[in-house]
Amino acid sequence: MTAFLDRCRAIAGADFVLDTPAGMAPFLRDWRGRFTGSARAVLRPGSVDEVARLVRLCADERVPIVPQGGNTGLVLGSVPDASGSAVVLSLARLATIRALDPVNRTVTVDAGVILQHVQEAAAAADCLFPLSLAAEGSCTIGGNLSTNAGGTGVLRYGNTRELCLGLEVVTPAGDIWSGLRGLRKDNTGYDLRDLYIGAEGTLGIITGAVMKLYPAPKASITALAALPSPEYALRLQSLLQDRAGASLTGFELMSALCLDLVARHFPALPRPFPATYPQYALLEISSSESADHAVQLLESATGAAFDAGIVLDAVVATSVAQSRGLWQLREHIPLAQAADGKNIKHDISLPVSSIAEFIARTEPQLQQAFPGCRLVCFGHLGDGNLHFNVAPPPGVDNEAFLVNQEAVNRVVHDAVVAFGGSISAEHGIGALKRDELARYKSPVELNLMRAIKAALDPLNIMNPGKIL
Amino acid sequence: MTAFLDRCRAIAGADFVLDTPAGMAPFLRDWRGRFTGSARAVLRPGSVDEVARLVRLCADERVPIVPQGGNTGLVLGSVPDASGSAVVLSLARLATIRALDPVNRTVTVDAGVILQHVQEAAAAADCLFPLSLAAEGSCTIGGNLSTNAGGTGVLRYGNTRELCLGLEVVTPAGDIWSGLRGLRKDNTGYDLRDLYIGAEGTLGIITGAVMKLYPAPKASITALAALPSPEYALRLQSLLQDRAGASLTGFELMSALCLDLVARHFPALPRPFPATYPQYALLEISSSESADHAVQLLESATGAAFDAGIVLDAVVATSVAQSRGLWQLREHIPLAQAADGKNIKHDISLPVSSIAEFIARTEPQLQQAFPGCRLVCFGHLGDGNLHFNVAPPPGVDNEAFLVNQEAVNRVVHDAVVAFGGSISAEHGIGALKRDELARYKSPVELNLMRAIKAALDPLNIMNPGKIL
Repeated sequence: MTAFLDRCRAIAGADFVLDTPAGMAPFLRDWRGRFTGSARAVLRPGSVDEVARLVRLCADERVPIVPQGGNTGLVLGSVPDASGSAVVLSLARLATIRALDPVNRTVTVDAGVILQHVQEAAAAADCLFPLSLAAEGSCTIGGNLSTNAGGTGVLRYGNTRELCLGLEVVTPAGDIWSGLRGLRKDNTGYDLRDLYIGAEGTLGIITGAVMKLYPAPKASITALAALPSPEYALRLQSLLQDRAGASLTGFELMSALCLDLVARHFPALPRPFPATYPQYALLEISSSESADHAVQLLESATGAAFDAGIVLDAVVATSVAQSRGLWQLREHIPLAQAADGKNIKHDISLPVSSIAEFIARTEPQLQQAFPGCRLVCFGHLGDGNLHFNVAPPPGVDNEAFLVNQEAVNRVVHDAVVAFGGSISAEHGIGALKRDELARYKSPVELNLMRAIKAALDPLNIMNPGKIL
Repeated sequence: MTAFLDRCRAIAGADFVLDTPAGMAPFLRDWRGRFTGSARAVLRPGSVDEVARLVRLCADERVPIVPQGGNTGLVLGSVPDASGSAVVLSLARLATIRALDPVNRTVTVDAGVILQHVQEAAAAADCLFPLSLAAEGSCTIGGNLSTNAGGTGVLRYGNTRELCLGLEVVTPAGDIWSGLRGLRKDNTGYDLRDLYIGAEGTLGIITGAVMKLYPAPKASITALAALPSPEYALRLQSLLQDRAGASLTGFELMSALCLDLVARHFPALPRPFPATYPQYALLEISSSESADHAVQLLESATGAAFDAGIVLDAVVATSVAQSRGLWQLREHIPLAQAADGKNIKHDISLPVSSIAEFIARTEPQLQQAFPGCRLVCFGHLGDGNLHFNVAPPPGVDNEAFLVNQEAVNRVVHDAVVAFGGSISAEHGIGALKRDELARYKSPVELNLMRAIKAALDPLNIMNPGKIL
């Protein structure tokens, strides 16, 4: 053990091998503070070569490795288990933006670069890096890739997977695969890139990536529409897609209860409507031409939706500042929820066309099983992704309600699977949803996944206990 | 052998197991007619279940399987070798469009559906299926997926990979993996889908897929710009992307020689300019709003490019019909080339920012090695994809020049790899480029690919000799 740590220190330097409880603590506790694991040490290499040498050492010694980026994951994918047998390998010191090519519209980054820094580097070159999510000030691009992170830009730009052109990966044997290609087309063999993306560090360690950039839109303008039901939100979205195509860059669904919670806990935020409506949709139109063009397109589309009887009321922002105000309502839902107490969260996706029926069928099932429970349902309608959270009935103790977690999951996830949906749309599996995965995936698919794991990580040292 | 074929007939029906030379001939010869392989039989199953049972039988008997769609591939990926040991398994009878969901914007298809039929089904539902390529009247969606086909829509919509949400695959053991999900977000384990896409049938047989649809643009309008050099084409493309964003749906580069060949062999086609210029770019703007909007956007962008001294001359179509006329110039380049004689073809990609320098450096190298040779260079500039074809000097016999194939490949592919490019942008590897792949891929990457192949096809019966 001491010999192992000495050899780690010889590779990464003594300052970057942490083995005291205080030094290791932030690397062992998960983002939501629900679980704290244990580790032999935390390794903080400063180069790709050091990563490779540390992995080779761990392979020799059969020491399990838990790769870690910003440690902002929500499914216990980036923290070790309680056994204390593993090392945490933090990529945070690999934080260099290696190159930015404005003509190829690519940026080549170390895995440990914080997402917001990628966004800022793109903006400085008059480009857009469209990945955007709540943890962007702390999460790293390597973690985004390993979990195939989603966020609010997926409708137009896709998940992290769709934003990546090339990867550099340290394999479980300690070899470096240099796949840092900045190519839009490359049909030369198996798609290793997409195999590592979303593998949550169980097949190798992503150390660098080539990410796509886009021309920055000239302006993005937002509207808030009041709707009678989720069914009407689907109709509104279809209308907007037909009229605006790729200029529709956001479509977020929020129930009345979501905006109630925001109004209660953040009274300073705007209240766009004097009345309350069953559902709301936040729409964003971006224009590569001008702000005027965006406003005009949004006004004509919401006007048409009004004429067609789809929307009950609508507020169209007339400036970028007003647009930010409307987005704040959406962004404060998770904060308002947290302020309101605990709840049982689900990150699910469905075929977009099934969303209204899914909500209409599943909410009564929940009410029947857990009378009075409150459904806090919001999400990225354009991606079919709902945050479908179940809060206790008013006045019911949080902890008392949380004992229903397993039973609530069963109602929600059984319904999701019956509708052809996914039990993890954007958060991944980690250790938290591993049993759920085993329950719902077919044996054929599980066996294919196990065969790949065994082929690429025969010693089973890469983030064991996650996903499979 | 007879017993094996009898068992095949018991599964697929006697009419659908071909073993006469005449019956098998069209399945054994490659699209360009350069190679004819040999097979025990051609199997034409009529259902996914029959595919699975035939594969299980082949696995039991260790009979290699060559999956085949429309057999329009260009790299000998869908025909058997000369040994006669394999069976061809044609998916052509699996030709049903299983479902189309206009709200989810997805179409679920059998692998054997012809690409044009998918396009037509989408159009009938007021949607766009954007994959478009020369062989679309014959190629099948299963083949498009297995080769990750590109085409002219990649700039805006991506390759076939980016258009696919879910797959159904028969594994080499004869199991059916049902991954026909119509989800935009799904982070539940390894990305099997993208592993099968582009694997050219070496890991399993794609039998069905869920493909993305898009709102159909209201109009697409085209312009032809005359340019001093490829460098200026890159500047024009950047300007257009900045001003038009996702509305820029096409950007094709063509050298003077390309349009010369078209004019010579297709004199009835329009000649847009009275003078000759070194390079041309075909631009397409699509609008979700109106034809007027598309024309206006294209005119203002080309005007700005003219003012900036980027373009020497430009013709903007003012109607959809005129736009078709300009596209015909581009589409007739391969036909004009074929009419002109044989040449040595390369399907390469590069970082977009390297294209001008690549051409400027590589053309003189070719001239030095093969004086007088003619470079027919055209392609999808927005994707960094060039068809970089080398024709004999005027008056030199075709066959005499073709003996230089290996030496010409070496000049071109060495340069491609030095610039960080790909030796197969959209055509794949098949049997034709297998040695080139082995030459240029790193040992680490080759070993990863081999490990995956061994894990998923341990008997090595799936399209052996292709890719690896």
